[in-house]
Amino acid sequence: MATAEVLCIGTELLLGDVLDTNSQFLAQQLALLGINCFHRVTVGDNPERIRECMRTALLRADILITSGGIGPTADDLTTESIAQVFGAPLDVDQEVLAFIEGLFAARGLKMPPSNAKQALRPRGARILPNPVGSAPGIIWTLGPAELAVLGLQDVQTVKSILTFPGVPSELKGMWAGTARGYLEETYAGGTIWSKELKHYGIGESALAEKFAHLLDLANPSVAPYAGNWECRLRVAAKAATLEEARALAQPVIDEIKQGSGVRCYGEDSDTLESVVGRLLTERGLTIALAESCTGGMVSERLTNIPGSSRYIMLNAVTYSNEAKHRVLGVSEEILNTQGAVSPECARAMALGIRQLTSCDLGLSVTGIAGPDGGTEEKPIGLVYLGLSARGADNEERYFARTLRLGKRLGRHEVRWRTAQEALNMVRLYLIDPQHLESP
Amino acid sequence: MATAEVLCIGTELLLGDVLDTNSQFLAQQLALLGINCFHRVTVGDNPERIRECMRTALLRADILITSGGIGPTADDLTTESIAQVFGAPLDVDQEVLAFIEGLFAARGLKMPPSNAKQALRPRGARILPNPVGSAPGIIWTLGPAELAVLGLQDVQTVKSILTFPGVPSELKGMWAGTARGYLEETYAGGTIWSKELKHYGIGESALAEKFAHLLDLANPSVAPYAGNWECRLRVAAKAATLEEARALAQPVIDEIKQGSGVRCYGEDSDTLESVVGRLLTERGLTIALAESCTGGMVSERLTNIPGSSRYIMLNAVTYSNEAKHRVLGVSEEILNTQGAVSPECARAMALGIRQLTSCDLGLSVTGIAGPDGGTEEKPIGLVYLGLSARGADNEERYFARTLRLGKRLGRHEVRWRTAQEALNMVRLYLIDPQHLESP
Repeated sequence: MATAEVLCIGTELLLGDVLDTNSQFLAQQLALLGINCFHRVTVGDNPERIRECMRTALLRADILITSGGIGPTADDLTTESIAQVFGAPLDVDQEVLAFIEGLFAARGLKMPPSNAKQALRPRGARILPNPVGSAPGIIWTLGPAELAVLGLQDVQTVKSILTFPGVPSELKGMWAGTARGYLEETYAGGTIWSKELKHYGIGESALAEKFAHLLDLANPSVAPYAGNWECRLRVAAKAATLEEARALAQPVIDEIKQGSGVRCYGEDSDTLESVVGRLLTERGLTIALAESCTGGMVSERLTNIPGSSRYIMLNAVTYSNEAKHRVLGVSEEILNTQGAVSPECARAMALGIRQLTSCDLGLSVTGIAGPDGGTEEKPIGLVYLGLSARGADNEERYFARTLRLGKRLGRHEVRWRTAQEALNMVRLYLIDPQHLESP
Repeated sequence: MATAEVLCIGTELLLGDVLDTNSQFLAQQLALLGINCFHRVTVGDNPERIRECMRTALLRADILITSGGIGPTADDLTTESIAQVFGAPLDVDQEVLAFIEGLFAARGLKMPPSNAKQALRPRGARILPNPVGSAPGIIWTLGPAELAVLGLQDVQTVKSILTFPGVPSELKGMWAGTARGYLEETYAGGTIWSKELKHYGIGESALAEKFAHLLDLANPSVAPYAGNWECRLRVAAKAATLEEARALAQPVIDEIKQGSGVRCYGEDSDTLESVVGRLLTERGLTIALAESCTGGMVSERLTNIPGSSRYIMLNAVTYSNEAKHRVLGVSEEILNTQGAVSPECARAMALGIRQLTSCDLGLSVTGIAGPDGGTEEKPIGLVYLGLSARGADNEERYFARTLRLGKRLGRHEVRWRTAQEALNMVRLYLIDPQHLESP
């Protein structure tokens, strides 16, 4: 089984200016590929120390993965350091150079000379394309000459170096685009086939207890993860072929789906919003949102699904009472007596947005996200959700939810948690309104 | 100046099950104490590798700080490993043992035998009390015997080991309670004061070239970072006191602000949306948004600022042409002839939302976020922004921006980049409309 070592390069990391999230992403991805990771090292922008860490890593691991230090500025030293470790010359990759110049030209700018260094690669290394940003990385499958430099004359294992930028979105894009495939081909001992079963409405420990007997399995392995107010069960099987691996995992996947029911909302790259989008498209239904405390987050997530313009007509972020009254027709009486954060207002908002847009579904969110604005009887974290719908029977239906999330959560957490619940309400309704009737 | 090395211990970290936030906290705290940190290492629950990492750290640093591995379970190996490195016996600390037994007794429980190991400490080490949880750590100022084991017969520097649990709240409590004081006493090397200057509208390399003469400074040091379509310059100064450090940095900060002008939009925790919010509040102005391709992202960001309900009335995500026509009053002629993605539509949307809400500012966004919907003449990444305003002179003003972001960016990147530009338009207008007049 191959071993990788992750080297994060950047003084900003050692000063704590930046929270390193790349390491967790890389760790999870390596685990998915069945590649071991025994050490992770973070080092600053110091040439000597960078080279020393690279040598150490290449001696104790098969794969060196670096993050950071491939930008255009003088303290970006990763590529140079790799070349120095092996005494390899740095060649200008004309294709990359032209590409970077093109990026500037597209904005009517001339490329600053310093950006040229981003087109450098040690002789023998290939380019690791960057689909998002300007700086590509490199993939270098070390040859006998490089191994000799490390004093590894007759190793049988393949040693590789992959470099990524520190910007998370770019690193992820490059991983999915090229790096994962390369590592799979070069190192995957057998094939690992895995599927993530995404859950909403059940906690990690409850999920772990429910499927405790599966968590002890070796192949397929089942592991629970939590984050962003949802849980995932990852089922991973290892076999000679992808088909055998899938066949190993399938019965376990079926058992989990069976046991979880609607709480298992999707697989792998599914999100609550993508599932809602798929269901709306299948049913040929349209939706409109009236958001207050979430400020547009539900809308942003739902419209982030390609093609969502087919089923979304209008989302109104009615932040002020005036907007709730003028745009959604919430009566002044409700606003003055019950207030904007009330079940009555949520209902009027949901009805109002649906009537304004004549959509099939009207979803409303009103609450107190904090950090201020909370009162004794309406504390921070109190949220009312409403879903107004015209059923298949053409009957008017209305469903309500109340969240009491407590003061502990920050503003963003309250909004995200609320958006999760709002999207899940729509999902449950589209699967079967009965799921919403029992609170 | 003393040097510390942070060693994070736990297989869950190397599997990516846990996001490591302790490292950033420790890094920031060490910087405040003026203690260097050149390496940070993460290792799994493997005795041999843990010992090897400890030896390496103690040879290249004065202070070894560990996080994790001091719980009651079999895979908690930190304390044992330290003892093994020096061949030191493990003593039971009766006080700690009684304390832990007390914790269980308080809950009417008998202490499980496994918890007794949390009362162990290598002979010669002191206890690092844990005000929050059950497991204390240790502080060990290494004596001649231990230094000899490391082959350091005649070093002048003091070498220390401090161990913390992995639980962030406990680690922070122990740091503030005891560890910081100990390190201050033993190693105090002045302190570091730093400020980040956030920029929009200038690339990292251009920024680095503009201030190239500053990037070579040693104290204060100036370093550029980029990400999320903006750039930061971090100015960090080291001195005996925080005041002296700030005084060292101030002239450089002033020079950068002077040189960057409006492209430097804020400091440290400022964001484009928080700056816009502050300016709107200062000017006593209100704003309303009409978003199409960003789907609510601008709204979500702007309303994520506490107190934003004071200046935001309504944000409309008008995704369909019908909504653009019915809610914003975009003429059918514009929609049919120029189309929804056109300068004319952006203008009509901005005017429409402002008239609907009678706000001071109306901001509109319409474009093609992809991945589909692009055409030859209207490619993916084409975005039109509009800002309609009633000036101080009560005169109607309108400002437009066109973005051509290209097909390379993903849907989310196009939206984020567009939101950055939209927020910056509002910022520039609020500072001085002239900044928008020259395209």
